Amino acid sequence: MTMFAARIEVSHLPGIADPQGATVERALPALGFTNVAAVHIGKTIRLVLEAPDAAAAELQVAEMCERILANPVIEHYEITVEELVEA
Amino acid sequence: MTMFAARIEVSHLPGIADPQGATVERALPALGFTNVAAVHIGKTIRLVLEAPDAAAAELQVAEMCERILANPVIEHYEITVEELVEA
Repeated sequence: MTMFAARIEVSHLPGIADPQGATVERALPALGFTNVAAVHIGKTIRLVLEAPDAAAAELQVAEMCERILANPVIEHYEITVEELVEA
Repeated sequence: MTMFAARIEVSHLPGIADPQGATVERALPALGFTNVAAVHIGKTIRLVLEAPDAAAAELQVAEMCERILANPVIEHYEITVEELVEA
């Protein structure tokens, strides 16, 4: 078994309201940042898992996303897996 | 002026409590995921801005991180900027 580091970026599906992003976007001009648009705020989950290979690790992370890490009804997730090299 | 897409990953500084990550990590074994560790949850901000070049865009995003997007006392941020190519 090998250790893998996974990064999962969870963002809102298109059309789903992103109130946190909208709030930041509205606040920016007051701070002098008038050239910014399309602010979207999602979450990033980083974790370490043990798996036989990278494909198995990614498959398990996808299952975890469906069951607990994301809400597939309103959220999109993007998984990146890489082998953890011990220092 | 050119349009740039920026991605900012905001995570807790080492030693700062991450209750969201800890809660997920404690919940995973009950779902059968017993091989997962080091769960950390942060946020990812994506935005579009206009700047003369990539260096200027990154500099402005860093200033925005210090002033509104992150809390530098307890959070670390990592900025990625790339030129937006119109389709």
